[in-house]
Amino acid sequence: MALVVQKFGGTSVGDAERIRAVADHVARTRRSGKDVVVVVSAMGKTTDDLIRLAREVSSVQPPREYDMLVSSGERISTALLCMALAELGVAASSFTGSQAGIVTDTDHTNAKIVDIRAGRIIEALEAGKVPVVAGFQGVSTEHDVTTLGRGASDLTAVALAAVLGAEVCEIYTDVTGVFSADPRIVPDAHKLSRVSFEEMLEIAAAGGRVLQLRSAEFARNHHVPLQVRSSFTWEPGTWIVEEDESMEQAIVTAVVHDVSQAKITVAGVPDRPGVAARLFRALADRAVNVDDIVQNASVRGTTDISFTVPRTQVAAAVEGVSEHIGELGGTGVTSDEGIAKLSVIGAGMKSHPGVTATMFETLAAEGINIDLISTSTIRISCIVREEDVERAARALHRAFELA
Amino acid sequence: MALVVQKFGGTSVGDAERIRAVADHVARTRRSGKDVVVVVSAMGKTTDDLIRLAREVSSVQPPREYDMLVSSGERISTALLCMALAELGVAASSFTGSQAGIVTDTDHTNAKIVDIRAGRIIEALEAGKVPVVAGFQGVSTEHDVTTLGRGASDLTAVALAAVLGAEVCEIYTDVTGVFSADPRIVPDAHKLSRVSFEEMLEIAAAGGRVLQLRSAEFARNHHVPLQVRSSFTWEPGTWIVEEDESMEQAIVTAVVHDVSQAKITVAGVPDRPGVAARLFRALADRAVNVDDIVQNASVRGTTDISFTVPRTQVAAAVEGVSEHIGELGGTGVTSDEGIAKLSVIGAGMKSHPGVTATMFETLAAEGINIDLISTSTIRISCIVREEDVERAARALHRAFELA
Repeated sequence: MALVVQKFGGTSVGDAERIRAVADHVARTRRSGKDVVVVVSAMGKTTDDLIRLAREVSSVQPPREYDMLVSSGERISTALLCMALAELGVAASSFTGSQAGIVTDTDHTNAKIVDIRAGRIIEALEAGKVPVVAGFQGVSTEHDVTTLGRGASDLTAVALAAVLGAEVCEIYTDVTGVFSADPRIVPDAHKLSRVSFEEMLEIAAAGGRVLQLRSAEFARNHHVPLQVRSSFTWEPGTWIVEEDESMEQAIVTAVVHDVSQAKITVAGVPDRPGVAARLFRALADRAVNVDDIVQNASVRGTTDISFTVPRTQVAAAVEGVSEHIGELGGTGVTSDEGIAKLSVIGAGMKSHPGVTATMFETLAAEGINIDLISTSTIRISCIVREEDVERAARALHRAFELA
Repeated sequence: MALVVQKFGGTSVGDAERIRAVADHVARTRRSGKDVVVVVSAMGKTTDDLIRLAREVSSVQPPREYDMLVSSGERISTALLCMALAELGVAASSFTGSQAGIVTDTDHTNAKIVDIRAGRIIEALEAGKVPVVAGFQGVSTEHDVTTLGRGASDLTAVALAAVLGAEVCEIYTDVTGVFSADPRIVPDAHKLSRVSFEEMLEIAAAGGRVLQLRSAEFARNHHVPLQVRSSFTWEPGTWIVEEDESMEQAIVTAVVHDVSQAKITVAGVPDRPGVAARLFRALADRAVNVDDIVQNASVRGTTDISFTVPRTQVAAAVEGVSEHIGELGGTGVTSDEGIAKLSVIGAGMKSHPGVTATMFETLAAEGINIDLISTSTIRISCIVREEDVERAARALHRAFELA
């Protein structure tokens, strides 16, 4: 029988009524003659609440205990969804990550899946049941509870879909799919009926928050067809599929913006080997998540290095740089939280070299200054002032005829 | 090294501050040179909240899913307590019931412990750690999460104390110990420094809610010394110990009252074999929890049978009886929720036959009418009107010189 994996995020199971709506949808899918495996996140803000509680209790959160704590939210939603399914006459069984056979390494709070022993899930399917699996969690090779990192319920779903040979992994969320731009700021943005994995990865990396980056990578590597859909409207969503050479590729598929980053600039650094290495090692040691890095051309033997980091990590980044600035020979470090990153993404860009020019011309026509530029084969990103980003996104969406 | 098992109930770990206070106490015990195993309940009303949520979601709660749901609260408190201990420099590891090796039968929501495989707990102790175990739960022989029934965190503690050979199992709660009467209604009630298991079992059965009955039985059968103590004042509590022939036994140790019961009377039942059997089988089939049963002497070939049940089960009991009253040949069934049960308990009663007389005389002098009487070797219980029970308790406490 055809198998579908359906994953429901925190807002999709946010309260009793939402859980019943999800149960109803799962029951319909089951009755349409398909086998269904469900993966759920914790209800609404449960995980955030638990983390807040942990901080109230202690300034120290050993990773093993952190995982024991935050993995409890998904147990609650699996059990509740099974109860709602029982009321609809659908036999269902909840499974923790451990019971579902999600075996991980021992890297608590950010564990990697090393094996999936889905025997119990397969048994439940063979018994005609709907297995409901707690997302985001597994059991380590040391038999401890682990979690796979924030947003990793998507990963649980994709991994199970891969190992069970599902025909599709449906990711249900609070948006109806992947859009050509954020509809909140670009009113004529439209839902994409399909994007390639390559584009999806760039969209996720550029700040489009629909799908967890790691899950999209896993799905691509294991050839799992994905569909991102809404659990509020249930309308068809966006398919994320392998690139098909025969299909005509849009030059630009989406405009993505991200206002969660800040820019750090280290000025007057000597332009000699090893300086950048020392700088970014210092940041890595503080677990600072560096995104774009731009080094300007050397002027009189010194250079400026700029990079972006999440705004929540500005203090750590500045501290990390400041500690080494003497030894690096730099003249100063500044931070700027008033920036935004704006990206245009499209698989067709590879064979259409004019996109960069169009992007810069469009921004110039709007009088918007570009601070930093970075590119990949299918993406061009600019750092602009935060106050300009919405206007810039609308202009680019228009310029690339995405409406 | 001497080992202590310390169990903390829901109010003891009710919020972040309480959890830190518990951690501080555990740390002190550890630093006094003892090995400590901790068992915790879910925080405050967590379990009640989860049950309410389940009812909002579905009218059907399959027992396996119920257990998956309600067992999550203890995971949270174990992890939080380990974090608080880490802040105090005490190495601790949380364990679910399953990880602690609490193996049960498959009777979900009320599972029996069939084995304790405490290998991981012993390893943690040998590594110098404080194992913090989720109470109330285990793993079934089918590898599913089970729970041991309400209040069964005590049982987890006692069972671990037995298997690990602990020198004492300390049950921390929101009262300072077992009292000669409820101090809220008998102002000069005093805390008992020790009671025998036999007395404790009668006190628990008579409505004294300090310790779960099943846990007290388990502790007696496995010779686990228990101490009931307060996690708010930390003062020495009440020891529950095996009866020692050499120790002088108080004739009456405690006066216990219980206003949670109602009386059901089945009138005019033919006095012939099998009638009572059919009646109580009908009640058992409806899971009605029958407490005292009194059958009056036969008058003209018929008799009245009275029994008490929890007030929450009156409707079910009356229904169960009514369905069979024709076949039983009874003339009617009545219920009375305005009653209270009053018991005097004391191991010394066995060798002092005058206690019953003193009890009845005391109540008579207060003008309090006795409805039903039941006795064991160390307990005498009367059913009186609910409005008389506090006055009766004070009078008996005085008469038996318990102040």
